[in-house]
Amino acid sequence: MEERLKKQLEFILEADKSKFIGRQTYLSDGIRKENDAEHSWHLALMTALLSEYAKEKIDVQKTMLMVLIHDIVEIDAGDTYAYDEKGKLSQREREVKAADRIFSLLPKDQAKSMRDLWEEFETCETPEAKFARCMDNLQPILLNDKTGGKSWRERQIKRSQVEERQKRTKMGSDTLMEVVTQIIEKNVKNGNLKDE
Amino acid sequence: MEERLKKQLEFILEADKSKFIGRQTYLSDGIRKENDAEHSWHLALMTALLSEYAKEKIDVQKTMLMVLIHDIVEIDAGDTYAYDEKGKLSQREREVKAADRIFSLLPKDQAKSMRDLWEEFETCETPEAKFARCMDNLQPILLNDKTGGKSWRERQIKRSQVEERQKRTKMGSDTLMEVVTQIIEKNVKNGNLKDE
Repeated sequence: MEERLKKQLEFILEADKSKFIGRQTYLSDGIRKENDAEHSWHLALMTALLSEYAKEKIDVQKTMLMVLIHDIVEIDAGDTYAYDEKGKLSQREREVKAADRIFSLLPKDQAKSMRDLWEEFETCETPEAKFARCMDNLQPILLNDKTGGKSWRERQIKRSQVEERQKRTKMGSDTLMEVVTQIIEKNVKNGNLKDE
Repeated sequence: MEERLKKQLEFILEADKSKFIGRQTYLSDGIRKENDAEHSWHLALMTALLSEYAKEKIDVQKTMLMVLIHDIVEIDAGDTYAYDEKGKLSQREREVKAADRIFSLLPKDQAKSMRDLWEEFETCETPEAKFARCMDNLQPILLNDKTGGKSWRERQIKRSQVEERQKRTKMGSDTLMEVVTQIIEKNVKNGNLKDE
């Protein structure tokens, strides 16, 4: 087998480990929490279906690929919960190290393009990155709402924490920011989010 | 909220159930079996990375979306194992009924385009559908190879069954068909696949 294809298949098998990286969000049944691969699948599907609400015109294919790989560094770095302030201090360092190792499994050209795409997501300055971030913020809010705020309740999450996290959602879409705002209001009202 | 967006979000939440639909393939750790959402995420990533091997030029974005939704009907119809000959008899009927219900949750235009894309995958006549099928065949072979043929061994799968299943792989890619052939040979040799 050619070296190039061998490297691609090696990366593809390494990526499988995303299925073992747990997140804090419960699935819609409220029983099991989701993992990175499931989450990323959901974001890519959402990107295709909701791109009409993007604030700026986006390259849908590029955005889909961006969300498919945006959490792959967590294979080494682990998932950092959105409201884990301590974990977030070392998050960047851990994730850069992971990106160095994981993307370099690919042939050079693809290693560079995937790594650049991941950095673009992190930096959140292009229309695609802003919309990808919007998807990444909207999806757990939808699931939290569906499960009666189960993971918020368990961790006594405050309205202000969710609002802080959702700050960048409106960079991607005004319409979807409205959805998020409505969901926050509803969940404060019914006590799933602490209003202090 | 506008009716259109409401329908889109309803579909997105319904799609979450793909995470509960189990498949027969073990993940690369050989412990847990994968589910439809994880599998579809993997195929979309593979599509982006391996499209250079497609036999005919493909629209990558279209193929990515096709693999993201190709198993969504299993929310109602359940997963039919590749070597379950009895289950395959009623598979089409179960899946069409599921497609009728699930895709129609979307606004009309998207319901039609998603349903058409699913049918295109099923019919397997376009370059995109052939490559999508190739991904759908290659991915479980890679995982089976990685786990020492665990699910093949458990079900005493024969070489001829895998070869029959892989018939359409070469419609999508000669190079990837070669990979599949090498993996089959290797697993017959080491006894993971029965050679009768």
